[in-house]
Amino acid sequence: MDDPVLLTGAGGRVGQAILGGIGSEYDWRLLDREPLAEEDIPDGVSDDDVVIGDVTDEEAVREAVDGVGAVIHLAGDPRPTAPWDSVLRNNIDGAHTVFDAAADSGVERVAFASSNHAVGAYETDERTPDMYRADDEYQLNGSELPRPSNLYGVSKASGEIIGRFYHDEHGISVACVRIGNLTKGHPPKEYERGQAMWLSHRDCAHLFDRCLRAEYGYEIVFGISDNDRKYYSIDRAREVLGYEPQDNSAEFTFEGDPKDGV
Amino acid sequence: MDDPVLLTGAGGRVGQAILGGIGSEYDWRLLDREPLAEEDIPDGVSDDDVVIGDVTDEEAVREAVDGVGAVIHLAGDPRPTAPWDSVLRNNIDGAHTVFDAAADSGVERVAFASSNHAVGAYETDERTPDMYRADDEYQLNGSELPRPSNLYGVSKASGEIIGRFYHDEHGISVACVRIGNLTKGHPPKEYERGQAMWLSHRDCAHLFDRCLRAEYGYEIVFGISDNDRKYYSIDRAREVLGYEPQDNSAEFTFEGDPKDGV
Repeated sequence: MDDPVLLTGAGGRVGQAILGGIGSEYDWRLLDREPLAEEDIPDGVSDDDVVIGDVTDEEAVREAVDGVGAVIHLAGDPRPTAPWDSVLRNNIDGAHTVFDAAADSGVERVAFASSNHAVGAYETDERTPDMYRADDEYQLNGSELPRPSNLYGVSKASGEIIGRFYHDEHGISVACVRIGNLTKGHPPKEYERGQAMWLSHRDCAHLFDRCLRAEYGYEIVFGISDNDRKYYSIDRAREVLGYEPQDNSAEFTFEGDPKDGV
Repeated sequence: MDDPVLLTGAGGRVGQAILGGIGSEYDWRLLDREPLAEEDIPDGVSDDDVVIGDVTDEEAVREAVDGVGAVIHLAGDPRPTAPWDSVLRNNIDGAHTVFDAAADSGVERVAFASSNHAVGAYETDERTPDMYRADDEYQLNGSELPRPSNLYGVSKASGEIIGRFYHDEHGISVACVRIGNLTKGHPPKEYERGQAMWLSHRDCAHLFDRCLRAEYGYEIVFGISDNDRKYYSIDRAREVLGYEPQDNSAEFTFEGDPKDGV
Protein backbone atom coordinates (compact mmCIF):
# COMPACT_ATOMS: atom_id res chain seq x y z
CA MET A 1 0.00 0.00 0.00
CA ASP A 2 1.72 3.13 -1.23
CA ASP A 3 -0.94 5.62 -0.21
CA PRO A 4 -1.23 6.62 3.43
CA VAL A 5 -3.43 4.64 5.78
CA LEU A 6 -5.85 6.49 8.02
CA LEU A 7 -6.15 5.05 11.52
CA THR A 8 -9.10 6.42 13.47
CA GLY A 9 -9.02 6.06 17.23
CA ALA A 10 -5.23 5.85 16.99
CA GLY A 11 -4.72 6.57 20.66
CA GLY A 12 -7.00 3.79 21.88
CA ARG A 13 -6.05 0.31 22.97
CA VAL A 14 -6.50 -1.34 19.61
CA GLY A 15 -4.87 1.53 17.75
CA GLN A 16 -1.84 1.34 19.98
CA ALA A 17 -1.58 -2.43 19.56
CA ILE A 18 -1.61 -1.95 15.79
CA LEU A 19 0.94 0.84 15.81
CA GLY A 20 3.11 -1.10 18.23
CA GLY A 21 3.32 -3.94 15.75
CA ILE A 22 3.20 -2.37 12.28
CA GLY A 23 3.81 1.29 13.04
CA SER A 24 6.89 1.40 10.83
CA GLU A 25 5.33 -0.37 7.85
CA TYR A 26 2.88 2.23 6.55
CA ASP A 27 2.58 5.93 6.00
CA TRP A 28 0.05 6.69 8.66
CA ARG A 29 -2.45 9.41 9.14
CA LEU A 30 -3.68 9.26 12.71
CA LEU A 31 -7.02 10.55 13.88
CA ASP A 32 -8.10 10.79 17.47
CA ARG A 33 -10.38 13.11 19.34
CA GLU A 34 -7.74 13.51 22.06
CA PRO A 35 -4.20 14.73 21.42
CA LEU A 36 -1.80 11.80 21.13
CA ALA A 37 1.14 11.44 23.47
CA GLU A 38 4.53 11.66 21.78
CA GLU A 39 5.29 8.03 22.55
CA ASP A 40 2.03 6.91 20.96
CA ILE A 41 3.04 8.25 17.54
CA PRO A 42 5.33 6.09 15.38
CA ASP A 43 8.62 7.60 14.23
CA GLY A 44 8.32 9.33 10.91
CA VAL A 45 4.69 10.43 11.25
CA SER A 46 4.65 14.18 10.73
CA ASP A 47 2.60 16.57 12.78
CA ASP A 48 0.43 17.19 9.71
CA ASP A 49 -0.59 13.56 9.77
CA VAL A 50 -1.75 13.62 13.38
CA VAL A 51 -5.27 14.97 13.30
CA ILE A 52 -7.35 15.85 16.33
CA GLY A 53 -10.96 15.34 15.42
CA ASP A 54 -14.11 13.46 16.18
CA VAL A 55 -15.62 10.86 13.86
CA THR A 56 -18.96 12.55 14.40
CA ASP A 57 -17.54 15.68 12.78
CA GLU A 58 -18.15 15.03 9.10
CA GLU A 59 -15.85 17.77 7.88
CA ALA A 60 -12.95 16.57 10.01
CA VAL A 61 -13.46 13.01 8.79
CA ARG A 62 -13.60 14.06 5.14
CA GLU A 63 -10.36 15.97 5.51
CA ALA A 64 -8.69 13.05 7.27
CA VAL A 65 -9.83 10.58 4.60
CA ASP A 66 -8.75 12.74 1.69
CA GLY A 67 -5.82 11.16 -0.12
CA VAL A 68 -5.54 7.92 1.84
CA GLY A 69 -5.72 4.51 0.19
CA ALA A 70 -7.13 2.62 3.14
CA VAL A 71 -8.80 3.23 6.48
CA ILE A 72 -8.65 1.29 9.71
CA HIS A 73 -11.70 2.55 11.55
CA LEU A 74 -11.49 2.00 15.29
CA ALA A 75 -12.85 5.23 16.73
CA GLY A 76 -16.02 5.04 18.76
CA ASP A 77 -17.28 4.53 22.25
CA PRO A 78 -15.53 1.27 23.28
CA ARG A 79 -17.54 0.61 26.42
CA PRO A 80 -19.76 -2.48 26.40
CA THR A 81 -21.91 -0.58 28.90
CA ALA A 82 -22.13 2.57 26.77
CA PRO A 83 -25.61 4.10 26.65
CA TRP A 84 -27.64 4.22 23.47
CA ASP A 85 -27.19 7.93 22.78
CA SER A 86 -23.45 7.51 22.76
CA VAL A 87 -23.26 4.41 20.56
CA LEU A 88 -25.86 5.85 18.19
CA ARG A 89 -23.78 8.97 17.69
CA ASN A 90 -20.22 7.73 18.01
CA ASN A 91 -20.45 4.19 16.69
CA ILE A 92 -23.36 4.03 14.24
CA ASP A 93 -23.38 7.56 12.88
CA GLY A 94 -19.59 7.67 13.18
CA ALA A 95 -19.19 4.51 11.10
CA HIS A 96 -21.50 5.90 8.44
CA THR A 97 -19.53 9.13 8.32
CA VAL A 98 -16.27 7.24 7.82
CA PHE A 99 -17.61 4.82 5.19
CA ASP A 100 -19.37 7.59 3.32
CA ALA A 101 -16.27 9.78 3.25
CA ALA A 102 -14.21 6.77 2.17
CA ALA A 103 -16.60 6.08 -0.71
CA ASP A 104 -16.59 9.69 -1.88
CA SER A 105 -12.82 9.86 -1.65
CA GLY A 106 -12.18 6.65 -3.60
CA VAL A 107 -10.66 4.74 -0.69
CA GLU A 108 -10.07 1.14 -1.73
CA ARG A 109 -10.47 -0.66 1.56
CA VAL A 110 -11.76 -0.18 5.08
CA ALA A 111 -11.00 -2.43 8.04
CA PHE A 112 -13.70 -1.88 10.63
CA ALA A 113 -13.29 -2.70 14.30
CA SER A 114 -16.37 -4.68 15.16
CA SER A 115 -16.69 -6.61 18.40
CA ASN A 116 -17.42 -9.95 19.96
CA HIS A 117 -20.37 -8.16 21.55
CA ALA A 118 -22.10 -8.15 18.15
CA VAL A 119 -22.75 -11.84 18.77
CA GLY A 120 -22.45 -11.95 22.56
CA ALA A 121 -25.99 -13.17 23.16
CA TYR A 122 -25.15 -16.53 21.60
CA GLU A 123 -23.53 -17.11 24.99
CA THR A 124 -26.73 -18.34 26.56
CA ASP A 125 -27.05 -19.78 30.03
CA GLU A 126 -27.39 -23.24 28.49
CA ARG A 127 -24.14 -22.95 26.54
CA THR A 128 -21.94 -21.28 29.13
CA PRO A 129 -19.44 -21.89 30.59
CA ASP A 130 -19.02 -25.06 28.48
CA MET A 131 -18.58 -23.11 25.26
CA TYR A 132 -15.57 -21.32 26.73
CA ARG A 133 -13.66 -24.59 27.05
CA ALA A 134 -11.31 -26.36 24.70
CA ASP A 135 -13.29 -29.59 24.59
CA ASP A 136 -16.57 -27.91 23.63
CA GLU A 137 -17.47 -27.97 19.95
CA TYR A 138 -19.81 -25.00 19.75
CA GLN A 139 -18.37 -22.42 17.42
CA LEU A 140 -19.50 -19.30 15.59
CA ASN A 141 -18.02 -18.62 12.17
CA GLY A 142 -19.40 -15.21 11.25
CA SER A 143 -22.20 -16.38 8.96
CA GLU A 144 -24.76 -16.29 11.79
CA LEU A 145 -27.19 -13.44 12.19
CA PRO A 146 -25.96 -10.82 14.68
CA ARG A 147 -27.08 -11.34 18.24
CA PRO A 148 -25.70 -8.56 20.41
CA SER A 149 -25.29 -8.75 24.13
CA ASN A 150 -25.62 -5.02 24.72
CA LEU A 151 -26.33 -1.77 22.90
CA TYR A 152 -22.64 -1.42 22.13
CA GLY A 153 -22.89 -4.74 20.33
CA VAL A 154 -25.99 -3.49 18.50
CA SER A 155 -23.96 -0.53 17.29
CA LYS A 156 -21.11 -2.74 16.09
CA ALA A 157 -23.46 -5.08 14.24
CA SER A 158 -25.04 -2.01 12.64
CA GLY A 159 -21.59 -0.81 11.61
CA GLU A 160 -20.99 -4.15 9.90
CA ILE A 161 -24.18 -3.66 7.91
CA ILE A 162 -23.19 -0.12 6.96
CA GLY A 163 -19.93 -1.60 5.70
CA ARG A 164 -21.83 -4.25 3.75
CA PHE A 165 -23.80 -1.51 2.00
CA TYR A 166 -20.71 0.51 1.13
CA HIS A 167 -19.07 -2.59 -0.23
CA ASP A 168 -22.05 -3.56 -2.38
CA GLU A 169 -22.84 -0.05 -3.54
CA HIS A 170 -19.38 1.45 -3.88
CA GLY A 171 -17.06 -1.52 -4.31
CA ILE A 172 -14.95 -0.79 -1.24
CA SER A 173 -13.23 -3.86 0.23
CA VAL A 174 -14.51 -4.10 3.79
CA ALA A 175 -13.18 -6.34 6.55
CA CYS A 176 -15.15 -6.33 9.79
CA VAL A 177 -12.95 -7.64 12.59
CA ARG A 178 -14.87 -8.79 15.63
CA ILE A 179 -12.19 -8.11 18.16
CA GLY A 180 -12.05 -10.46 21.13
CA ASN A 181 -10.32 -9.71 24.39
CA LEU A 182 -7.22 -7.68 23.61
CA THR A 183 -4.67 -7.62 26.42
CA LYS A 184 -0.99 -6.93 26.45
CA GLY A 185 1.55 -9.58 27.42
CA HIS A 186 -0.72 -12.33 28.66
CA PRO A 187 -4.37 -13.39 28.57
CA PRO A 188 -6.79 -12.25 31.24
CA LYS A 189 -6.54 -14.27 34.43
CA GLU A 190 -9.40 -16.18 35.99
CA TYR A 191 -11.68 -15.31 33.11
CA GLU A 192 -12.48 -18.27 30.90
CA ARG A 193 -14.44 -16.25 28.39
CA GLY A 194 -11.59 -13.80 28.00
CA GLN A 195 -9.08 -16.59 27.55
CA ALA A 196 -11.26 -18.16 24.86
CA MET A 197 -11.39 -14.92 22.90
CA TRP A 198 -7.97 -13.60 23.78
CA LEU A 199 -6.21 -11.51 21.17
CA SER A 200 -2.54 -10.80 21.75
CA HIS A 201 -1.07 -7.48 20.69
CA ARG A 202 1.11 -9.00 18.00
CA ASP A 203 -1.73 -11.08 16.57
CA CYS A 204 -3.89 -7.96 16.54
CA ALA A 205 -1.31 -5.96 14.60
CA HIS A 206 -0.75 -8.86 12.22
CA LEU A 207 -4.47 -9.31 11.58
CA PHE A 208 -4.98 -5.65 10.67
CA ASP A 209 -1.83 -5.86 8.54
CA ARG A 210 -3.51 -8.69 6.62
CA CYS A 211 -6.66 -6.57 6.29
CA LEU A 212 -4.49 -3.96 4.55
CA ARG A 213 -2.75 -6.42 2.21
CA ALA A 214 -5.07 -9.31 1.33
CA GLU A 215 -7.58 -9.35 -1.51
CA TYR A 216 -11.20 -9.60 -0.46
CA GLY A 217 -14.63 -8.16 -0.99
CA TYR A 218 -16.65 -8.10 2.22
CA GLU A 219 -15.63 -10.16 5.20
CA ILE A 220 -16.60 -10.66 8.82
CA VAL A 221 -13.82 -12.32 10.77
CA PHE A 222 -13.10 -12.96 14.41
CA GLY A 223 -10.06 -11.25 15.87
CA ILE A 224 -8.71 -13.73 18.38
CA SER A 225 -5.44 -15.56 18.81
CA ASP A 226 -5.07 -19.28 18.08
CA ASN A 227 -6.37 -20.25 21.50
CA ASP A 228 -7.05 -23.87 22.43
CA ARG A 229 -10.25 -22.59 23.97
CA LYS A 230 -12.05 -21.08 21.03
CA TYR A 231 -15.74 -20.61 20.25
CA TYR A 232 -15.06 -18.32 17.34
CA SER A 233 -13.69 -19.86 14.19
CA ILE A 234 -10.61 -18.19 12.72
CA ASP A 235 -10.77 -20.30 9.56
CA ARG A 236 -12.16 -17.49 7.47
CA ALA A 237 -9.45 -15.08 8.64
CA ARG A 238 -6.82 -17.67 7.79
CA GLU A 239 -8.24 -18.53 4.38
CA VAL A 240 -9.21 -15.14 3.05
CA LEU A 241 -6.87 -12.79 4.86
CA GLY A 242 -3.87 -15.06 5.38
CA TYR A 243 -4.05 -14.56 9.13
CA GLU A 244 -1.41 -16.63 10.92
CA PRO A 245 -1.72 -16.04 14.65
CA GLN A 246 1.26 -16.84 16.83
CA ASP A 247 -0.31 -16.80 20.27
CA ASN A 248 -2.53 -19.11 22.27
CA SER A 249 -3.97 -18.36 25.67
CA ALA A 250 -3.41 -22.00 26.66
CA GLU A 251 0.33 -21.37 26.72
CA PHE A 252 -0.16 -19.24 29.80
CA THR A 253 -1.08 -20.77 33.10
CA PHE A 254 -1.91 -18.85 36.18
CA GLU A 255 -2.00 -19.99 39.71
CA GLY A 256 -5.55 -20.10 40.90
CA ASP A 257 -7.09 -20.29 37.43
CA PRO A 258 -10.52 -21.78 37.68
CA LYS A 259 -11.13 -25.19 36.25
CA ASP A 260 -14.87 -25.00 36.53
CA GLY A 261 -15.68 -21.42 35.66
CA VAL A 262 -16.27 -18.49 37.92
CA MET B 1 -54.98 -10.13 23.23
CA ASP B 2 -57.06 -8.30 25.81
CA ASP B 3 -54.77 -5.34 26.32
CA PRO B 4 -54.73 -2.58 23.72
CA VAL B 5 -52.38 -2.80 20.76
CA LEU B 6 -50.29 0.23 19.88
CA LEU B 7 -49.94 0.83 16.16
CA THR B 8 -47.24 3.37 15.28
CA GLY B 9 -47.42 4.99 11.87
CA ALA B 10 -51.13 4.21 11.84
CA GLY B 11 -51.85 6.65 9.03
CA GLY B 12 -49.29 5.20 6.64
CA ARG B 13 -49.85 2.68 3.87
CA VAL B 14 -49.07 -0.40 5.93
CA GLY B 15 -50.99 0.91 8.93
CA GLN B 16 -54.05 1.50 6.84
CA ALA B 17 -53.81 -1.96 5.26
CA ILE B 18 -53.72 -3.47 8.74
CA LEU B 19 -56.59 -1.41 10.08
CA GLY B 20 -58.58 -2.09 6.91
CA GLY B 21 -58.35 -5.81 7.60
CA ILE B 22 -58.32 -6.25 11.37
CA GLY B 23 -59.39 -2.81 12.58
CA SER B 24 -62.37 -4.24 14.43
CA GLU B 25 -60.53 -7.07 16.13
CA TYR B 26 -58.37 -5.24 18.67
CA ASP B 27 -58.51 -2.33 21.05
CA TRP B 28 -56.19 0.00 19.23
CA ARG B 29 -54.06 2.86 20.30
CA LEU B 30 -52.93 4.72 17.21
CA LEU B 31 -49.82 6.84 16.98
CA ASP B 32 -48.90 9.01 14.05
CA ARG B 33 -47.02 12.24 13.72
CA GLU B 34 -49.77 13.63 11.52
CA PRO B 35 -53.42 13.91 12.56
CA LEU B 36 -55.43 10.97 11.22
CA ALA B 37 -58.39 11.50 8.94
CA GLU B 38 -61.71 10.40 10.38
CA GLU B 39 -62.04 7.59 7.83
CA ASP B 40 -58.60 6.25 8.73
CA ILE B 41 -59.66 5.51 12.31
CA PRO B 42 -61.59 2.28 12.98
CA ASP B 43 -64.98 2.57 14.61
CA GLY B 44 -64.78 2.37 18.35
CA VAL B 45 -61.34 3.92 18.78
CA SER B 46 -61.75 6.84 21.16
CA ASP B 47 -60.06 10.19 20.68
CA ASP B 48 -57.90 9.41 23.70
CA ASP B 49 -56.43 6.49 21.83
CA VAL B 50 -55.41 8.52 18.81
CA VAL B 51 -52.08 10.08 19.68
CA ILE B 52 -50.26 12.64 17.60
CA GLY B 53 -46.57 12.18 18.24
CA ASP B 54 -43.25 11.37 16.72
CA VAL B 55 -41.33 8.14 17.43
CA THR B 56 -38.25 10.27 17.95
CA ASP B 57 -40.00 11.90 20.90
CA GLU B 58 -39.18 9.55 23.74
CA GLU B 59 -41.75 10.96 26.11
CA ALA B 60 -44.56 10.68 23.57
CA VAL B 61 -43.58 7.10 22.83
CA ARG B 62 -43.44 6.14 26.49
CA GLU B 63 -46.90 7.55 27.04
CA ALA B 64 -48.24 5.77 23.99
CA VAL B 65 -46.73 2.44 25.04
CA ASP B 66 -47.96 2.65 28.61
CA GLY B 67 -50.60 0.01 29.25
CA VAL B 68 -50.55 -1.76 25.91
CA GLY B 69 -49.89 -5.48 25.56
CA ALA B 70 -48.38 -5.40 22.11
CA VAL B 71 -46.90 -2.97 19.62
CA ILE B 72 -46.93 -2.98 15.85
CA HIS B 73 -44.13 -0.58 15.03
CA LEU B 74 -44.39 0.83 11.54
CA ALA B 75 -43.49 4.49 11.99
CA GLY B 76 -40.41 5.78 10.28
CA ASP B 77 -39.21 7.29 7.06
CA PRO B 78 -40.56 4.84 4.44
CA ARG B 79 -38.61 6.14 1.46
CA PRO B 80 -36.02 3.77 -0.02
CA THR B 81 -34.21 6.94 -1.11
CA ALA B 82 -34.30 8.54 2.35
CA PRO B 83 -31.04 10.21 3.35
CA TRP B 84 -28.92 8.93 6.21
CA ASP B 85 -29.81 11.66 8.69
CA SER B 86 -33.47 10.84 8.38
CA VAL B 87 -33.19 7.05 8.66
CA LEU B 88 -30.71 7.39 11.51
CA ARG B 89 -33.15 9.52 13.48
CA ASN B 90 -36.54 8.19 12.44
CA ASN B 91 -35.83 4.55 11.77
CA ILE B 92 -32.84 3.51 13.88
CA ASP B 93 -33.21 5.79 16.86
CA GLY B 94 -36.99 5.58 16.53
CA ALA B 95 -36.91 1.78 16.68
CA HIS B 96 -34.71 1.88 19.75
CA THR B 97 -37.06 4.31 21.44
CA VAL B 98 -40.04 2.04 20.79
CA PHE B 99 -38.31 -1.19 21.84
CA ASP B 100 -36.85 0.42 24.93
CA ALA B 101 -40.19 1.86 26.01
CA ALA B 102 -41.82 -1.51 25.32
CA ALA B 103 -39.28 -3.28 27.52
CA ASP B 104 -39.70 -0.81 30.36
CA SER B 105 -43.45 -1.02 30.14
CA GLY B 106 -43.63 -4.81 30.14
CA VAL B 107 -45.00 -5.14 26.62
CA GLU B 108 -45.10 -8.81 25.61
CA ARG B 109 -44.61 -8.58 21.89
CA VAL B 110 -43.51 -6.22 19.18
CA ALA B 111 -44.07 -6.70 15.46
CA PHE B 112 -41.56 -4.58 13.61
CA ALA B 113 -41.99 -3.44 10.02
CA SER B 114 -38.73 -4.29 8.37
CA SER B 115 -38.30 -4.23 4.64
CA ASN B 116 -37.20 -6.19 1.59
CA HIS B 117 -34.55 -3.47 1.25
CA ALA B 118 -32.72 -4.99 4.24
CA VAL B 119 -31.64 -7.74 1.83
CA GLY B 120 -32.06 -5.92 -1.48
CA ALA B 121 -28.41 -6.20 -2.49
CA TYR B 122 -28.78 -9.96 -2.94
CA GLU B 123 -30.44 -8.92 -6.17
CA THR B 124 -27.16 -8.75 -8.05
CA ASP B 125 -26.79 -8.13 -11.76
CA GLU B 126 -25.98 -11.82 -12.22
CA ARG B 127 -29.16 -12.99 -10.50
CA THR B 128 -31.65 -10.51 -11.94
CA PRO B 129 -34.09 -10.60 -13.59
CA ASP B 130 -34.03 -14.41 -13.43
CA MET B 131 -34.61 -14.48 -9.69
CA TYR B 132 -37.86 -12.58 -10.12
CA ARG B 133 -39.36 -15.42 -12.14
CA ALA B 134 -41.38 -18.44 -11.13
CA ASP B 135 -39.01 -20.98 -12.62
CA ASP B 136 -35.93 -19.65 -10.81
CA GLU B 137 -34.91 -21.47 -7.66
CA TYR B 138 -32.95 -18.76 -5.88
CA GLN B 139 -34.62 -17.94 -2.59
CA LEU B 140 -33.83 -16.10 0.60
CA ASN B 141 -35.26 -17.46 3.83
CA GLY B 142 -34.27 -14.86 6.43
CA SER B 143 -31.28 -16.69 7.89
CA GLU B 144 -28.86 -14.84 5.60
CA LEU B 145 -26.82 -11.90 6.81
CA PRO B 146 -28.45 -8.57 5.97
CA ARG B 147 -27.38 -7.05 2.69
CA PRO B 148 -29.17 -3.74 2.22
CA SER B 149 -29.68 -2.04 -1.11
CA ASN B 150 -29.83 1.48 0.33
CA LEU B 151 -29.48 3.38 3.59
CA TYR B 152 -33.15 2.83 4.30
CA GLY B 153 -32.41 -0.89 4.14
CA VAL B 154 -29.45 -0.37 6.46
CA SER B 155 -31.79 1.26 8.95
CA LYS B 156 -34.30 -1.59 8.74
CA ALA B 157 -31.60 -4.23 9.21
CA SER B 158 -30.38 -2.25 12.21
CA GLY B 159 -33.90 -2.18 13.59
CA GLU B 160 -34.02 -5.97 13.32
CA ILE B 161 -30.84 -6.17 15.39
CA ILE B 162 -32.23 -3.79 17.99
CA GLY B 163 -35.24 -6.10 18.19
CA ARG B 164 -32.97 -9.11 18.57
CA PHE B 165 -31.29 -7.44 21.55
CA TYR B 166 -34.57 -6.55 23.22
CA HIS B 167 -35.77 -10.09 22.74
CA ASP B 168 -32.62 -11.65 24.20
CA GLU B 169 -32.24 -9.16 26.99
CA HIS B 170 -35.84 -8.49 27.95
CA GLY B 171 -37.76 -11.51 26.71
CA ILE B 172 -40.05 -9.58 24.39
CA SER B 173 -41.42 -11.64 21.51
CA VAL B 174 -40.25 -9.87 18.37
CA ALA B 175 -41.38 -10.52 14.81
CA CYS B 176 -39.55 -8.61 12.09
CA VAL B 177 -41.66 -8.55 8.95
CA ARG B 178 -39.71 -7.73 5.81
CA ILE B 179 -42.55 -6.20 3.90
CA GLY B 180 -42.50 -6.68 0.14
CA ASN B 181 -44.43 -4.58 -2.33
CA LEU B 182 -47.72 -3.64 -0.73
CA THR B 183 -50.36 -2.46 -3.18
CA LYS B 184 -54.11 -2.32 -2.98
CA GLY B 185 -56.32 -4.39 -5.27
CA HIS B 186 -53.78 -5.81 -7.65
CA PRO B 187 -50.03 -6.30 -8.00
CA PRO B 188 -47.87 -3.65 -9.63
CA LYS B 189 -47.96 -3.79 -13.40
CA GLU B 190 -44.95 -4.26 -15.64
CA TYR B 191 -42.69 -4.70 -12.64
CA GLU B 192 -41.45 -8.24 -12.24
CA ARG B 193 -39.68 -7.56 -8.98
CA GLY B 194 -42.81 -6.04 -7.48
CA GLN B 195 -44.91 -8.97 -8.61
CA ALA B 196 -42.46 -11.40 -7.03
CA MET B 197 -42.68 -9.63 -3.68
CA TRP B 198 -46.25 -8.48 -3.88
CA LEU B 199 -48.16 -8.28 -0.62
CA SER B 200 -51.91 -7.82 -0.86
CA HIS B 201 -53.75 -5.73 1.69
CA ARG B 202 -55.62 -8.68 3.13
CA ASP B 203 -52.49 -10.82 3.39
CA CYS B 204 -50.74 -7.91 5.08
CA ALA B 205 -53.48 -7.53 7.69
CA HIS B 206 -53.59 -11.30 8.23
CA LEU B 207 -49.82 -11.54 8.67
CA PHE B 208 -49.74 -8.84 11.34
CA ASP B 209 -52.75 -10.48 12.96
CA ARG B 210 -50.68 -13.67 13.21
CA CYS B 211 -47.81 -11.65 14.70
CA LEU B 212 -50.23 -10.61 17.45
CA ARG B 213 -51.56 -14.10 18.12
CA ALA B 214 -48.87 -16.72 17.46
CA GLU B 215 -46.28 -17.92 19.96
CA TYR B 216 -42.70 -17.13 19.05
CA GLY B 217 -39.45 -15.75 20.38
CA TYR B 218 -37.57 -13.80 17.73
CA GLU B 219 -38.43 -14.16 14.08
CA ILE B 220 -37.53 -12.60 10.77
CA VAL B 221 -40.15 -13.36 8.13
CA PHE B 222 -40.92 -12.12 4.66
CA GLY B 223 -44.18 -10.29 4.19
CA ILE B 224 -45.30 -11.28 0.72
CA SER B 225 -48.34 -13.02 -0.71
CA ASP B 226 -48.22 -16.58 -2.01
CA ASN B 227 -46.93 -15.50 -5.40
CA ASP B 228 -45.84 -18.02 -8.03
CA ARG B 229 -42.90 -15.74 -8.58
CA LYS B 230 -41.19 -15.75 -5.22
CA TYR B 231 -37.57 -15.29 -4.19
CA TYR B 232 -38.42 -14.91 -0.55
CA SER B 233 -39.47 -18.00 1.33
CA ILE B 234 -42.68 -17.73 3.33
CA ASP B 235 -42.13 -21.13 4.95
CA ARG B 236 -41.04 -19.62 8.25
CA ALA B 237 -44.05 -17.32 8.39
CA ARG B 238 -46.32 -20.29 7.69
CA GLU B 239 -44.68 -22.59 10.23
CA VAL B 240 -44.10 -20.27 13.14
CA LEU B 241 -46.78 -17.64 12.72
CA GLY B 242 -49.48 -19.67 11.01
CA TYR B 243 -49.50 -17.31 8.05
CA GLU B 244 -51.93 -18.47 5.36
CA PRO B 245 -51.82 -16.01 2.49
CA GLN B 246 -54.76 -15.95 0.10
CA ASP B 247 -53.33 -13.96 -2.77
CA ASN B 248 -50.91 -14.62 -5.59
CA SER B 249 -49.71 -12.06 -8.08
CA ALA B 250 -49.85 -14.71 -10.81
CA GLU B 251 -53.63 -14.61 -10.65
CA PHE B 252 -53.55 -11.17 -12.19
CA THR B 253 -52.60 -10.67 -15.79
CA PHE B 254 -52.19 -7.33 -17.39
CA GLU B 255 -52.16 -6.50 -21.03
CA GLY B 256 -48.68 -5.54 -22.04
CA ASP B 257 -46.98 -7.28 -19.14
CA PRO B 258 -43.42 -8.06 -20.03
CA LYS B 259 -42.48 -11.67 -20.55
CA ASP B 260 -38.77 -11.07 -20.64
CA GLY B 261 -38.20 -8.39 -18.08
CA VAL B 262 -38.02 -4.65 -18.51
